[in-house]
Amino acid sequence: MNNIADYKIDHLSIGTVCSHSALQIFHGAKQEGFKTIGLTLPSRKSTYELFPLARPDEFIELESFKQLLTTENQKKLLDKNAIIIPHGSFVEYVGAKNILENYNVPVFGNKGSMIWESSREKVTQWMELAKLNVPKYKSPDEIDSLCIVKLGGAKGGRGFFLVKNETEFYDKLGPNKIEDVVVQEYIVGVRYYHHFFHSVIKNRTEFLGIDQRLESNVDGLHRIHEYVEPSYTVTGNAPVVIRESLVPGIIKMGENVVKASKELFSPGLSGPFCIETICTPDLKFYAFEISARIVAGTNVYPLGSQYSCYYFDEPMSTGRRIAREIKEAKQNDSLEKVVS
Amino acid sequence: MNNIADYKIDHLSIGTVCSHSALQIFHGAKQEGFKTIGLTLPSRKSTYELFPLARPDEFIELESFKQLLTTENQKKLLDKNAIIIPHGSFVEYVGAKNILENYNVPVFGNKGSMIWESSREKVTQWMELAKLNVPKYKSPDEIDSLCIVKLGGAKGGRGFFLVKNETEFYDKLGPNKIEDVVVQEYIVGVRYYHHFFHSVIKNRTEFLGIDQRLESNVDGLHRIHEYVEPSYTVTGNAPVVIRESLVPGIIKMGENVVKASKELFSPGLSGPFCIETICTPDLKFYAFEISARIVAGTNVYPLGSQYSCYYFDEPMSTGRRIAREIKEAKQNDSLEKVVS
Amino acid sequence: MNNIADYKIDHLSIGTVCSHSALQIFHGAKQEGFKTIGLTLPSRKSTYELFPLARPDEFIELESFKQLLTTENQKKLLDKNAIIIPHGSFVEYVGAKNILENYNVPVFGNKGSMIWESSREKVTQWMELAKLNVPKYKSPDEIDSLCIVKLGGAKGGRGFFLVKNETEFYDKLGPNKIEDVVVQEYIVGVRYYHHFFHSVIKNRTEFLGIDQRLESNVDGLHRIHEYVEPSYTVTGNAPVVIRESLVPGIIKMGENVVKASKELFSPGLSGPFCIETICTPDLKFYAFEISARIVAGTNVYPLGSQYSCYYFDEPMSTGRRIAREIKEAKQNDSLEKVVS
Repeated sequence: MNNIADYKIDHLSIGTVCSHSALQIFHGAKQEGFKTIGLTLPSRKSTYELFPLARPDEFIELESFKQLLTTENQKKLLDKNAIIIPHGSFVEYVGAKNILENYNVPVFGNKGSMIWESSREKVTQWMELAKLNVPKYKSPDEIDSLCIVKLGGAKGGRGFFLVKNETEFYDKLGPNKIEDVVVQEYIVGVRYYHHFFHSVIKNRTEFLGIDQRLESNVDGLHRIHEYVEPSYTVTGNAPVVIRESLVPGIIKMGENVVKASKELFSPGLSGPFCIETICTPDLKFYAFEISARIVAGTNVYPLGSQYSCYYFDEPMSTGRRIAREIKEAKQNDSLEKVVS
Repeated sequence: MNNIADYKIDHLSIGTVCSHSALQIFHGAKQEGFKTIGLTLPSRKSTYELFPLARPDEFIELESFKQLLTTENQKKLLDKNAIIIPHGSFVEYVGAKNILENYNVPVFGNKGSMIWESSREKVTQWMELAKLNVPKYKSPDEIDSLCIVKLGGAKGGRGFFLVKNETEFYDKLGPNKIEDVVVQEYIVGVRYYHHFFHSVIKNRTEFLGIDQRLESNVDGLHRIHEYVEPSYTVTGNAPVVIRESLVPGIIKMGENVVKASKELFSPGLSGPFCIETICTPDLKFYAFEISARIVAGTNVYPLGSQYSCYYFDEPMSTGRRIAREIKEAKQNDSLEKVVS
Repeated sequence: MNNIADYKIDHLSIGTVCSHSALQIFHGAKQEGFKTIGLTLPSRKSTYELFPLARPDEFIELESFKQLLTTENQKKLLDKNAIIIPHGSFVEYVGAKNILENYNVPVFGNKGSMIWESSREKVTQWMELAKLNVPKYKSPDEIDSLCIVKLGGAKGGRGFFLVKNETEFYDKLGPNKIEDVVVQEYIVGVRYYHHFFHSVIKNRTEFLGIDQRLESNVDGLHRIHEYVEPSYTVTGNAPVVIRESLVPGIIKMGENVVKASKELFSPGLSGPFCIETICTPDLKFYAFEISARIVAGTNVYPLGSQYSCYYFDEPMSTGRRIAREIKEAKQNDSLEKVVS
């Protein structure tokens, strides 16, 4: 239950945790005329003060991210009529369950989506309901080709490893438990991480851009011939575009993910999301993840992307798109539709 | 023979097939004030309706791409004073020979260029006349180093394979006939696909940007140590820039390609084209292709590139550049110079 | 000793050698309203005339780059109240020592930085004073893991090679002398080349963007399975962004490099610089170079980057940033602070 009904809608502010995609979110909120609030550890504050056009108007300093959940800090935000934009770090620090059950500040989008993106089983169920191609899951004794092993709850790809057969699986598993990992067919192809924005105000799913994650060390391995065990820590992102004949299928994927979400957690997904895919030589997309909130890959496009420019004749980042949605919801007196 | 002389030049429209680089072409045409027409299969129409700033003003629906050539559809376009922008999919669907012999709608650029880009022998002759470095062609018994084997007419790199010697060549050739393939020295280096626009109105060859194609699975192979046979299906593109000391040589390549085209098919190449190259450690470019029309790699730059901004103080995509050329030709009463 | 005190400050011009990042520098200088001068070999002049918005207003033609140093050419520049922007090719052609001792035309930034970036020992001392992580240097008999061997004075990575042990080191050393090379631990990870601008007028260190160099042939090696000896010739650059949680540490690196420079060569570094790093899976940056002047990687962003847009609400390249600094110095009557 959030308190949006009590908000003074002419004094809204937009807040988020100073990390992940916060510069873009603050920048976009300022472009749309909102006051901005940065939730930050003291150590990070000075960085966010450096950028004149992305600096939050106000900071709430936290000794640790646990304090995001305190009544006192929630009250501060409620008093400022703040809408929180939940990016990956926010979800990680507070926890999807806590956001759903113990967080009363209005959160942009549908909190239900955080539950559904946060567990491997749930997100797989979601992807399958949306008719996405999902790489096959396997039990250890079914490993008969290159597979990737993912630790449950591994953040940003850390702890993933590749195996070719059952023996290698057990060798590399180490102290981890079988029940804590999933084994998935490894798809060889080019990675495309598609950014969408589902607007409940405009009732449309926009395709706002594509990035590729740069993971260390795996995206440095092509420069050496020696065998080094690959690791998958996300370190950054690069811009890419897709063959145009694939765009209809990508938009279909986005629309299907929204449609499936309505069945799974009514009223369904709203706001920014991302479908992480691999494109194979026969031009099929395999989806291995849905991120049901703004992804860091959108940081590649703070002034808009190669696709956003076909929707908007002004620089439109995902951060700004969020603020625009809030502004239009306010104008239509439907704020309750865009927060939860 | 086209009908441009009969056109009502104050009611021109710009049309293309809904694929390849059509979003960019429609977007650019609209920026320059033209009416736009999308030739589309019914299944793709909804996608092109989604983008407010790149949506064609009107659609002509086709049951199959064969219908592009019917008298009826050509008449529809002639009645709308349409100039067709021939991108890669248009050329593929209609066929270079048909465009030359059986298509009466005015086509932007010189149709002759489509004949010259569409056959491996002809494009090689063109590249050699333009004094580009072309990787050596070899007969099977001359294969003494890494070579790439290209199937005749292979679209988007599909069906290419690598061989190191004659035995491997015959092993991998499979059911294909020797006379249907070419064997070419494999050049190891960094790929740069240079976008040009030759303006017959301004009488200059502009250097509008560079991309790198992302091919599946070959551009995903660096992430695994296992041997997987590379394949080369084009899936997308990424932006890159070149060392500035190489720019004079690149512009020279572009100008030489235009100059050679005048000898091969008078009055020569006009409009957008691309020279696909590999840059070796000694900073030599090897050219392996000329695309004598807009390439999909320009989709990376719908608001202009790192080089277009030195020509134009407004966002200038290749799509918009085409529309600008038509506009200026119209103003100079020289439309017949920019279409064929 | 430069002659800035004698300049007519209402008739300043900005000059540089036609190479490296000159298009960007001229473009930026023109945007800020300065007259521009291109120092060029006759062979390159025509290229720089092609770009209407980056074309220098005036050329000084040189038979060879040695002539940059002649009294006559220096006098021409002094007469035009020219400030020279020293990019990598300028420093290479004139020589850091010559710029310091025999060049009287005011040079943007602190000439001392060129001395400190130009020798491997000095730049290492600088990096260590700035508390950057520097990959370990090794003597040949200490090579016990993958190492990179760098020839002294190797330009743009040419002549670098990899070794795994002492035997391989001597095998690959060839005719080079041991005292002319350094052996450095090879760090496997993702490369990020961070662009900064230290403004002495605003007294702040701005983080203006990140690129990745594209080196031939090493950045083409992922497309083949065969062993080919890697080489590292810089051919171009690509845009990337970094995980936002790493931004505070990057800015700290930039600030520390400036701080250390004040100890090493008072009044320290000013203007554009770059810290070339590798990001490892544990999210540590290893720095292997400081470039104490505009780097070619900034050519990726002639209209600003994913970070510059958070400082400036107009397209701000590093080239334009330089011109802006000169303009603001002029307005504050502090030109002597921004040149040396």
